[in-house]
Amino acid sequence: MALDAEAASEHKGVGGAAPAIVPVILSGGAGTRLWPLSRPGRPKQLLPLVEARTMLQMTLARLSCLPEAAAPIVVAGARDAEEVARQAAGIGIVPAALILEPLGRNTAPAIALAALSARANDLLLVMPSDHVIGRPEALADAVRAAAPLAAQGWILTFGLPATAPETGYGYIRRGAALAPGVEAAAGFVEKPPIETATALVASGDHLWNSGIFLFRAGTILDALAACAPDVRDAAAAALAAAVRDGHEIRPNAEAFARSPSISIDYAVMEHADRIAVAAADMGWSDVGSFDALYGILDKDEEGNAAEGDVVALGTTDCLIRAEGITVAAIDVEGLVIVATKDAVLVSRRDSSQKVSEIVRRLAERDKP
Amino acid sequence: MALDAEAASEHKGVGGAAPAIVPVILSGGAGTRLWPLSRPGRPKQLLPLVEARTMLQMTLARLSCLPEAAAPIVVAGARDAEEVARQAAGIGIVPAALILEPLGRNTAPAIALAALSARANDLLLVMPSDHVIGRPEALADAVRAAAPLAAQGWILTFGLPATAPETGYGYIRRGAALAPGVEAAAGFVEKPPIETATALVASGDHLWNSGIFLFRAGTILDALAACAPDVRDAAAAALAAAVRDGHEIRPNAEAFARSPSISIDYAVMEHADRIAVAAADMGWSDVGSFDALYGILDKDEEGNAAEGDVVALGTTDCLIRAEGITVAAIDVEGLVIVATKDAVLVSRRDSSQKVSEIVRRLAERDKP
Repeated sequence: MALDAEAASEHKGVGGAAPAIVPVILSGGAGTRLWPLSRPGRPKQLLPLVEARTMLQMTLARLSCLPEAAAPIVVAGARDAEEVARQAAGIGIVPAALILEPLGRNTAPAIALAALSARANDLLLVMPSDHVIGRPEALADAVRAAAPLAAQGWILTFGLPATAPETGYGYIRRGAALAPGVEAAAGFVEKPPIETATALVASGDHLWNSGIFLFRAGTILDALAACAPDVRDAAAAALAAAVRDGHEIRPNAEAFARSPSISIDYAVMEHADRIAVAAADMGWSDVGSFDALYGILDKDEEGNAAEGDVVALGTTDCLIRAEGITVAAIDVEGLVIVATKDAVLVSRRDSSQKVSEIVRRLAERDKP
Repeated sequence: MALDAEAASEHKGVGGAAPAIVPVILSGGAGTRLWPLSRPGRPKQLLPLVEARTMLQMTLARLSCLPEAAAPIVVAGARDAEEVARQAAGIGIVPAALILEPLGRNTAPAIALAALSARANDLLLVMPSDHVIGRPEALADAVRAAAPLAAQGWILTFGLPATAPETGYGYIRRGAALAPGVEAAAGFVEKPPIETATALVASGDHLWNSGIFLFRAGTILDALAACAPDVRDAAAAALAAAVRDGHEIRPNAEAFARSPSISIDYAVMEHADRIAVAAADMGWSDVGSFDALYGILDKDEEGNAAEGDVVALGTTDCLIRAEGITVAAIDVEGLVIVATKDAVLVSRRDSSQKVSEIVRRLAERDKP
């Protein structure tokens, strides 16, 4: 991996061997939607939500479905440095680089840091670290179908069958076919209101945006330069003044703070040309709420997904999670009950997206 | 107070001044119905469930409605000795005697211990320590109306308007009038099935048994000798070998253990003659479940009774209690949510009488 990214980006168009696919794992999220499991110091991706491995470990392990890929770049919050390194080591993975963001600035600046740390011709496979992908081979097939277009300078998104009018997701309109399984992206709709979402799902020509991307490092840096130059400039300045220790890179905080906080969707996808979408029915979940977590967990015959020291009586269709505490439930249904040693959430399962509001209120209240 | 009760009981029929009313506060209950607030080492009566004072403190303080009464005898579990003494002192009350049961044997043996520690002519006003009485002056009036009959050897119960077909209560059938506000008790029905309870309430001639009694010490000892001699014998032997320290009396454990575990209702009330009932609409609650506790607490405009560090969103008609932990509730209604540092209960409010079953299961599970 070239660490002099500015120099490397001069290599545009170097042909020959197929460019390397470099996974970029974004692990910088704070996660307020799974409180009280997730906390500022314990973000969702570092928790064993779905199985014994954490979401980050599941994401890293999933890369084995793409054996031709290089070692991953991991972008994480500086606060989580030790835990991220420990979790990667725990499943025998050493990242090519561990970029430690001094503060969270959303996905566009994180991707800029990764792109500037790679070779311009590397194909960056950007993946969130807190999603579940039940059929990773479907993703691998889509990546292989998309790679030639990415090498030609297209920005590839991966689209999911839109099966419900979700208002929290981004939607991609399918355009002209570019290659088998790959179409031009004819438009983006980010987090539409319910009426729009319903229409988009009914249209049949929209896919959910998975948040997984494939592009040349050089391509995305050019797109950032065109669409969000202050993001790219701040990331470049932060890396120029970075503290490096082995594979750990600590970008300069002051420089990085100058970047706007913006997602790659808003910064680039909605503005750039040559965006494509590869559909992949990969058994995806963003585990974006306790209800979503309930959806992917195994249930007992009463429909409960219970973990920890739980006693349930006449209780059905509940997600119950006890961490270091005993939970008893009597004659309740369709609830989320999540208890840790210092906090308890009891919510209707279909209201569990309102957890962020609880976190906001608690933060508000705890202000001096 | 005479400590040689056997000798004192020879004084039957001594006339002259009105006999002293000696409150006997029963504080020996273990309490499994308010788990996880109540625990083996933290019984219900020692908890501040309804207000800042504990139930025992409320009970002791309530005696001020009867200023003519003597200092109370308190019967408590030996395990709770320090806490009971501390709580009594906390409201400036020094019991005439603090009888510390070496083990719980239900109310009949506890009352036998108190009766044997009093003078035969003392009128014992026996009261549970874990009830709420909203109108203590109504109780005081009933006690005064009943005292002459008690002095004549009647066993007085205090009856409450039976307003619902409760299956957990005892019912007393009203018989012939004995004095203004006092009638003979024509029969007892203990914890009837729902059909019977419904019929009893509909009949209009049944009162709930409040668990409050008034009788001469000599009368109840004679009744015990007749109906449950092993209770009286075990209590007498336990007191004969008791360890006494100031006003603290520690009955001998081995002797006391020989008593059957039986309530005064089963041991005496259902068998003895000359039982009377004084009706008293005293604003009574046994706080026998979280739903009952909800019933007597103040509610906010959403119908929630919340205490502790609670954030509620779209939540109505819930009892929420957080002790040393944060509780957040979203869009739930009619629930009991009680959380302590090591255990959480989430129950439908109208299922909260099933809490004992949870306690039983936890005990079962924790067996070696």
